[in-house]
Amino acid sequence: MRIIIDAMGGDDAPAAVVDGCVAAVRDMDVDLILVGREAAVRQELKRCGYHGDRIEVVNAEEVIEGEDDPMTAIRQKKDSSMRVALSLLRHGQGDAVVSAGNTGALIAGATLMIKRIRGVRRVALAPIMPTTSGCFLMVDAGANAECTPAFLKQFAIMGSIYMEKIMGCKNPRVKLVNIGTEEEKGTPLVVETHKLLKKTPVRYEGYIEARDIPVGGADVVVCDGFTGNVILKFMEGMGMAFYDMLKGIFLKNLFSKLAAGIVRGGLKSLKKTMDYTEYGGAPILGAAKPMVKAHGSSNGKAFYHAILQAKKLVENHLIEIITDNIQKYGVDTRECEEADE
Amino acid sequence: MRIIIDAMGGDDAPAAVVDGCVAAVRDMDVDLILVGREAAVRQELKRCGYHGDRIEVVNAEEVIEGEDDPMTAIRQKKDSSMRVALSLLRHGQGDAVVSAGNTGALIAGATLMIKRIRGVRRVALAPIMPTTSGCFLMVDAGANAECTPAFLKQFAIMGSIYMEKIMGCKNPRVKLVNIGTEEEKGTPLVVETHKLLKKTPVRYEGYIEARDIPVGGADVVVCDGFTGNVILKFMEGMGMAFYDMLKGIFLKNLFSKLAAGIVRGGLKSLKKTMDYTEYGGAPILGAAKPMVKAHGSSNGKAFYHAILQAKKLVENHLIEIITDNIQKYGVDTRECEEADE
Repeated sequence: MRIIIDAMGGDDAPAAVVDGCVAAVRDMDVDLILVGREAAVRQELKRCGYHGDRIEVVNAEEVIEGEDDPMTAIRQKKDSSMRVALSLLRHGQGDAVVSAGNTGALIAGATLMIKRIRGVRRVALAPIMPTTSGCFLMVDAGANAECTPAFLKQFAIMGSIYMEKIMGCKNPRVKLVNIGTEEEKGTPLVVETHKLLKKTPVRYEGYIEARDIPVGGADVVVCDGFTGNVILKFMEGMGMAFYDMLKGIFLKNLFSKLAAGIVRGGLKSLKKTMDYTEYGGAPILGAAKPMVKAHGSSNGKAFYHAILQAKKLVENHLIEIITDNIQKYGVDTRECEEADE
Repeated sequence: MRIIIDAMGGDDAPAAVVDGCVAAVRDMDVDLILVGREAAVRQELKRCGYHGDRIEVVNAEEVIEGEDDPMTAIRQKKDSSMRVALSLLRHGQGDAVVSAGNTGALIAGATLMIKRIRGVRRVALAPIMPTTSGCFLMVDAGANAECTPAFLKQFAIMGSIYMEKIMGCKNPRVKLVNIGTEEEKGTPLVVETHKLLKKTPVRYEGYIEARDIPVGGADVVVCDGFTGNVILKFMEGMGMAFYDMLKGIFLKNLFSKLAAGIVRGGLKSLKKTMDYTEYGGAPILGAAKPMVKAHGSSNGKAFYHAILQAKKLVENHLIEIITDNIQKYGVDTRECEEADE
């Protein structure tokens, strides 16, 4: 198996990316193609003491920055590491792509260059996020600010498959974000999607209110990308806020510092639990080939996990399974079209 | 000043309500009308040892429950404490209403019975929520699942006035929730509202991403009621999740319990900081008379604060100031109508 890596994507690229890649070829049966500024990438490989033949480097001079407009960047930066990586994937030079770069550009690249699985209306960004008791998949976390019921129905199908086949969650509970649990509550989008999902062969368990998400109320949380992105970022912000407040409490005086020493291990694991970057990357569900978005702040370890995840997508034939299921249950039925109107 | 109280609203009504009321008449220059099952209310007053003449009791036999459908309940339960309380307010028997009952029913009652301030298109629920450095007002937190740019423009004006006149926040920073900070990012609702708000005489500082909300990125956070309700409930859920995890850390063994003892005060104040029920009730902005929604789980102290808040609304002429400003800046200009289309 050969995985294509955007070596220049992420806050600490290419160093963190190369760290993760070197660890990956050491532990896993994968070959990697690193796309980016060749001299810089080779220097990092040298720093890591890697001299093997499982990592190939393909030069690309440009870099898509975080601040770049996604659509413009993916269209115009033709020699960017992300675009060249996607081009290699498109032309069958590798089995999957991993990038920690500009999320919007990667999503645009998925649609424009890799294309969608036949019948899939929109690709979705689906990060794994932590709960007190485990984790859940959120789909969509921001690829589509505006959605229709038919999009959300497909997100539920794809998310359910991902949680089952890749995350090993048996018969995952799928729920739809709403502001109440009564049938007729919420926006027309939510009410219509609710009707569609009841007839979809996933384990749909109805609405979920946001307060039940952090305590593990669902395995797959379905929502439009605006809502999903708000939840994702609010969780990030709350995590930071809490941690800062805890720090304030523990750094107050000598005694509190002593207390901090006693529970240090627990606090570290709490921080880890609430840090969704620990859970590897987010698949771009619905793209015709396996694509993983690693978090922008990925360190070597996080990037390693994102590669592992890409490997699982390939090994477990995620694309083929989604293709089958979308054909069977997810394509434009009359219901979907009516619901979309 | 006379404040009308829905004595049967809230999880611990009428006991908690009466606790708050008795404390209020002791400390503040207010008279209260408690509406609810007279025998039960009088029994609670007796329990509190209250024999004064500043609390009047008006009998109402029915109770609107949390599970009741809001619109049906407010229309059909004619002898419910909430409806009778609103009827008294409508007929000038008091200056404001406080209720910890069914939020949806109270909002429906605001529109149907109290009516909106002239020119106001929708009333909004506007709770004060905590940040690491203080608090912010969120408007709308769930009264309107679907909004137009013109609604949000009025929410910004009303929220700004509330933060300045009632909360004493000088020249409050108003921001609009979005999933990025670039101009053209987000849904059409957000993009159009952004254009309107730039021309509105509030201190509008553009978009805010959800991650910046808990650290005090804005004083007034404007969003549709679906998004606002998701944020409100997610904050509640994250708070509980965090606290449970902390508990787990501290109850682990004898040493960790010792550590807990040392930082107990700090942890308590952290819990208090993140508990938005500590911040009194939420005004229903845009209603033609002062209305405060106390949190359903209010204890006596929280209810006391909600009464104090209602008193401030009256004393500071909130309704009059909002009326003036909506007339001047918030009514149907052509911009609003275009943006709504």
